[in-house]
Amino acid sequence: MNSLTDIQSLFKDDAMVKLLGIEIVDARPGHAETLLKLTDEHLNSIKMTHGAVLFAMADVTMAIASNMHGKVAVAFSVTINYLKASTAGEVIKATAKEDNLTKKTGVYRIEIVNQDNTLIAVAEGTVFRKEEHS
Amino acid sequence: MNSLTDIQSLFKDDAMVKLLGIEIVDARPGHAETLLKLTDEHLNSIKMTHGAVLFAMADVTMAIASNMHGKVAVAFSVTINYLKASTAGEVIKATAKEDNLTKKTGVYRIEIVNQDNTLIAVAEGTVFRKEEHS
Amino acid sequence: MNSLTDIQSLFKDDAMVKLLGIEIVDARPGHAETLLKLTDEHLNSIKMTHGAVLFAMADVTMAIASNMHGKVAVAFSVTINYLKASTAGEVIKATAKEDNLTKKTGVYRIEIVNQDNTLIAVAEGTVFRKEEHS
Amino acid sequence: MNSLTDIQSLFKDDAMVKLLGIEIVDARPGHAETLLKLTDEHLNSIKMTHGAVLFAMADVTMAIASNMHGKVAVAFSVTINYLKASTAGEVIKATAKEDNLTKKTGVYRIEIVNQDNTLIAVAEGTVFRKEEHS
Repeated sequence: MNSLTDIQSLFKDDAMVKLLGIEIVDARPGHAETLLKLTDEHLNSIKMTHGAVLFAMADVTMAIASNMHGKVAVAFSVTINYLKASTAGEVIKATAKEDNLTKKTGVYRIEIVNQDNTLIAVAEGTVFRKEEHS
Repeated sequence: MNSLTDIQSLFKDDAMVKLLGIEIVDARPGHAETLLKLTDEHLNSIKMTHGAVLFAMADVTMAIASNMHGKVAVAFSVTINYLKASTAGEVIKATAKEDNLTKKTGVYRIEIVNQDNTLIAVAEGTVFRKEEHS
Repeated sequence: MNSLTDIQSLFKDDAMVKLLGIEIVDARPGHAETLLKLTDEHLNSIKMTHGAVLFAMADVTMAIASNMHGKVAVAFSVTINYLKASTAGEVIKATAKEDNLTKKTGVYRIEIVNQDNTLIAVAEGTVFRKEEHS
Repeated sequence: MNSLTDIQSLFKDDAMVKLLGIEIVDARPGHAETLLKLTDEHLNSIKMTHGAVLFAMADVTMAIASNMHGKVAVAFSVTINYLKASTAGEVIKATAKEDNLTKKTGVYRIEIVNQDNTLIAVAEGTVFRKEEHS
């Protein structure tokens, strides 16, 4: 895994990338950024962005950052905190950065901001790194 | 909100219920159950169930259990732990139960099991309860 | 590690067991129970049980349950949710049960109840299992 | 609550500040820093810093940052991730910063570093803000 194009190709069949339309805009070992244009398709029953849509962005962005190291990494635990509502028409951006990396584990913080650069959700996740190449 | 039919109707436009095909099978104040038949559409790039699909099930099931009390409840923080892989062809079930309820908050545990009744993921979430009726 | 006496002996120098007076009352592979008699020494600046005291009980109880399998297990991530206040004079009990165990990891739910058997805190934690014997 | 001296005075009876020897070195609305000189009193049964000691530092640091706004704030949920071992002889520092503040809630990230400024633990916590003054 060594380029943005490679990772976009690897993730083109990822369920959430496809179903939600998540766009991968940066991918380096330990770092990733994704964008999502919010539409009616992303809302919950009270017309706010679905919490699971925000989680999916966080999860995918962490998966990219952690898999860019070249070994398969799978999520073990993730905590998400919802800070501010958003809705259709907005474009949101998720950024994953690495808090720690060992041979077998990685820990990531993912921040999601709206167009005003205001935090709307933060997540912290842990991954296991397998022996296989990603 | 006072019946399974009502809640199925309320959640029929929920992004994740629609996109993933989550089926609501039980809904009472503080308790809910959902089912999901896993297909290729639910997998990540290494052909396991996408972590965000499991999260979406947990989130929706908590939303149902908490909104059945009759006041709008929105997620504040959720932690999910992934325990065991699953894949296309399996049917999984999520159950939400209430650990605590106050006037303004609720805390829920959500367990997701496979057909062998083995835990594949557990989540714990907190919600805020608003003044509006759900 | 194969008895309650062994584990009590192993944990007698544990910082939190000593400083807080946590009592180990049950210890088996994957399961543990501890008690704590709350005194003024356990309170925060507003005279409620300190959140970190409840966390310490959860953490110690998980450590016991996970180390009773005979391999050293160390905490990786823990989430705690506070449900109900408590204060000096009460006796509280923590119970850890295993949600999952693999060769390298364990996942535990810890419940803390007061004398009325009402949940006052719940935690979910993950551990790594090392090669050394505990 | 409007100075470092005030908050040091308020927290001098805090169970964990007293038992562990946590030193408050900065306190402003939404921001706080604490120090801890690790001794044998802070270790677990395998002679590493006790996870609950790190949690206690994170919790106290968040409590200071959130209470400096002048309203009583109590922890609702906290997640901690352990990144790197530490032991007696080291001095560690915790810094809390505010990810979000509303009338009723606050969300904080707490980072704990060792003397090399390497992250050894990260926590994310939510608080409720009460009507009473702190």
